[in-house]
Amino acid sequence: MTTTVIVGGVAGGMSTATRLRRNDEDMEIIVLEASNNVSFANCGLPYYAGGIIKDRDKLLLQTPQALKDRFNLDVRVNTTATSIDRRNQTVTITTPNGETESLHYDYLVLSPGATPIELPIEGIERALTLRTVEDVDAIVDKLDGAKTVAIIGGGFIGLELAENFTHRGITTTVIERAPEIMAPLDTEMSRIVRTHLEANGVRVLTDADTTLIDETSVRLADGTVIPADLVISSVGVKPASDLAREAGLEVGARGGIAVDEQQRTNDPKIFAVGDAAEKRDHNFGEATLVPLAQTANRHGRLVADIITGRNTQRTATLGTSIVGLFGLAAASVGWNERRAKAAGKNLRIIHLHPADHAGYYPGATQIHLKLVVDADTDLILGAQAVGENGVDKRIDVLATAMRAGLTATDLADLELAYAPQFGSAKDPINMAGFINDNMVNGEQTIQFYELNDELAGGAVLIDVREESEFAAGHIPGAVNIPLNQLRNNVAELVASDFADKRVIVHCQVGLRGHTATSLLRNHDVEVANLDGGYLTWSLAQ
Amino acid sequence: MTTTVIVGGVAGGMSTATRLRRNDEDMEIIVLEASNNVSFANCGLPYYAGGIIKDRDKLLLQTPQALKDRFNLDVRVNTTATSIDRRNQTVTITTPNGETESLHYDYLVLSPGATPIELPIEGIERALTLRTVEDVDAIVDKLDGAKTVAIIGGGFIGLELAENFTHRGITTTVIERAPEIMAPLDTEMSRIVRTHLEANGVRVLTDADTTLIDETSVRLADGTVIPADLVISSVGVKPASDLAREAGLEVGARGGIAVDEQQRTNDPKIFAVGDAAEKRDHNFGEATLVPLAQTANRHGRLVADIITGRNTQRTATLGTSIVGLFGLAAASVGWNERRAKAAGKNLRIIHLHPADHAGYYPGATQIHLKLVVDADTDLILGAQAVGENGVDKRIDVLATAMRAGLTATDLADLELAYAPQFGSAKDPINMAGFINDNMVNGEQTIQFYELNDELAGGAVLIDVREESEFAAGHIPGAVNIPLNQLRNNVAELVASDFADKRVIVHCQVGLRGHTATSLLRNHDVEVANLDGGYLTWSLAQ
Repeated sequence: MTTTVIVGGVAGGMSTATRLRRNDEDMEIIVLEASNNVSFANCGLPYYAGGIIKDRDKLLLQTPQALKDRFNLDVRVNTTATSIDRRNQTVTITTPNGETESLHYDYLVLSPGATPIELPIEGIERALTLRTVEDVDAIVDKLDGAKTVAIIGGGFIGLELAENFTHRGITTTVIERAPEIMAPLDTEMSRIVRTHLEANGVRVLTDADTTLIDETSVRLADGTVIPADLVISSVGVKPASDLAREAGLEVGARGGIAVDEQQRTNDPKIFAVGDAAEKRDHNFGEATLVPLAQTANRHGRLVADIITGRNTQRTATLGTSIVGLFGLAAASVGWNERRAKAAGKNLRIIHLHPADHAGYYPGATQIHLKLVVDADTDLILGAQAVGENGVDKRIDVLATAMRAGLTATDLADLELAYAPQFGSAKDPINMAGFINDNMVNGEQTIQFYELNDELAGGAVLIDVREESEFAAGHIPGAVNIPLNQLRNNVAELVASDFADKRVIVHCQVGLRGHTATSLLRNHDVEVANLDGGYLTWSLAQ
Repeated sequence: MTTTVIVGGVAGGMSTATRLRRNDEDMEIIVLEASNNVSFANCGLPYYAGGIIKDRDKLLLQTPQALKDRFNLDVRVNTTATSIDRRNQTVTITTPNGETESLHYDYLVLSPGATPIELPIEGIERALTLRTVEDVDAIVDKLDGAKTVAIIGGGFIGLELAENFTHRGITTTVIERAPEIMAPLDTEMSRIVRTHLEANGVRVLTDADTTLIDETSVRLADGTVIPADLVISSVGVKPASDLAREAGLEVGARGGIAVDEQQRTNDPKIFAVGDAAEKRDHNFGEATLVPLAQTANRHGRLVADIITGRNTQRTATLGTSIVGLFGLAAASVGWNERRAKAAGKNLRIIHLHPADHAGYYPGATQIHLKLVVDADTDLILGAQAVGENGVDKRIDVLATAMRAGLTATDLADLELAYAPQFGSAKDPINMAGFINDNMVNGEQTIQFYELNDELAGGAVLIDVREESEFAAGHIPGAVNIPLNQLRNNVAELVASDFADKRVIVHCQVGLRGHTATSLLRNHDVEVANLDGGYLTWSLAQ
């Protein structure tokens, strides 16, 4: 009888186990889980802490007994794999009562997940982390009577916790060391999230280094003291790859277990999936880490198929992610501009701020959408979206387009479902394609961060919005010529004010700017549209 | 100076006009619109009738004067094009005051839309149709004091009107001649919509032929009399292709103006876009009619680019559509099973009923999803989805996948944004891919309509749900063996009850059925899973 031992009983491990059983009735399948629970809803933990998910049992999707009854799996919780003897194909484990045992394996699947990064801060041992059901139990215990919480780390879990603590009436501060929260987003996008968090009562500190955690507060490098009955440390995770490393398995530069396209380590009997394993990045194939449940599940299924004799392989990873915060969704896929620039790519950057559905139908809200396009290939390298509604849909469409190798221009032709409650006859995705198409065909745009250099270089900045919009707020140095007025006086302006000048035009979000740009281009003016208009510029201020 | 004359000033025509101006500042652009309004929100008309859109001005997205000011367009409303002289490149028009004029064109773009089909019924002249702002004004006029409405036709507009009239407290009956409402959906899917409409107070009659409309009622062939202070006829549209036909332009078998991949008619100076023009179907390239605003807009833009010298061409049409009815969304893309069968395709049909987001997070609702897959190529021929939430997203992802030529198996690997409010770690789209993958790898399924033949042929039907589920309702002839019990007794069952038998298993939605199928396959039983489980079967009853 073939025996497969699986280390880790959550997303990747449990997907491997159940798929193995569906594929092979005779295999012995042993799952080792270090915590007290398997198959728990780790993405639900913050919402249990906040009381949104009220029933703790909802977090526990399976029990060892249920998995035995349904899938004939040998699931052992509170059981740790401590070493692997690759030559003899055995794994040494510590049982719940502290005894040591050795298990033979024909195949070994490592899915131990990731562990929270621990900052080297005095008092860090008083900070709680959130990864398991036991972790959330500990947090909920401490919340009783707590009035203040400090969360170190402005990533997904930290921000989800901030929302949930605030729901419970607890004064919450997020402390982020980087200049902005939410690393997957570029600055002008993450600012929207920050503003929304602050509007909902969360204190957000950035460029903030924590230096000391004591019983009642957190101290920052600049001397700020933040009252904190409870401190959460949520500064990211590192792959749990020690077991693999100690067994001589290859581990990548970023600490993930190295695997091939079939999730196989350098030992053909040993596979790795989930947060502990390296992924291959979609854009240019480099090794990466993407700690997402979807990928873990998918790779678990894949490994089970491969072990049971199917020749198949993984696809690359996009890193699609989303977070919901006080009714605002922020999502991204692929690379942000920062990363694409660091990779030295020639880019087209596109910002737009369309309504999530037809403006004439009640309840439309604004989506802030950004595309990062490889100007050499027209492929979409990444996208970001922030808004109240329809953000998940647009990012999922873009993730599908990226996976399929559609170009940014192809987005213009996507035929998406339109009724006034759900979208627009020109969906935001189509609009992004149109903008890209215009750029491919020679329309120049500049980014908000290029504006100062343009102005210093002598460019004229024309705000083509209406006078009332201009009066309500405008970019320093801009001259207001509403679009229709520009059209009426274009010949004269081209001959005088704009003569031999570089002209930058902008409107609120970019559409009237595009019309103005077209008008001036047709009059042979050297003109560029400020991408995303006044709104993008103002988000970045 | 080049002159382009555009017949029709709504979606396709106006997209052509504004894009032409952006591309070419010098062109004379004349838009002829037969109604009193251009660029109106035709998809919003039912919601204005229902009072959801309260402000009539919201329907009017542009005025001729605004289009003059911004785009220097010569827009003429209440102006009808009556004939085309192709040799002299002139179009004859009737002006608002009834005079006849002749306009020269260098390019002519036909975007006259479609006209409501008029049934040959006595009294049909008393039925109102809905296509223009004037139409909705007439309906709103008549609604004052109306207590009953009969709507002939159970398509999108008819059903949207039914919802809106019901909102206004009017007793509404939908009369559909076909066996089911909503032709884009297959029976078991459209039934969900029907049930929802009925639960919200709409009377729905199918297989119902209207024979007479009098002042106060509608009479059906079976003698039924339906009280109707107001009668709406909404039985579809036909392309407004008379002008083109009379000018000797080629018109297809279904009445649409024939065009090439650049929307050019058989006269190189004349283009056609929008509901009046033929489209090319995505699946196998045949000529088709798809009266959708998105396509009209896209083709308008395309034609403007082509007229101004760009060599580009259209993509094929998927026919993606959606309707929202009393909080339920019903959407589809591509072909339904009926059409795919009629085309003689070898199919894989997949039904699933997943939650729109993680079940452990509050507020999850069920999505009913159906895929029609070409079994020979694994390409997705079409999909349908019905549910309260997340339906638009899944259909848009599928539309993108279809456009890009992804296979149904590729859906398993799509990396979609997951947080518990927005989706699941295994999204419905991924699940559809998994089910397809299982079928590709030999798992047999049968459809609900094949069950009777299977049972007549001697197959054993096993319901693997729990006893309580079975007791609450089950398929006649099914034997209840809950899944865990099946596993515990599988060797015995295979040797006795199942020996030399064809076995059909089913659960509620298909997942436990898949596990049971795997279990029995591994014991060499000839087994098939009832696709979509008891739920799909019961929807079709």
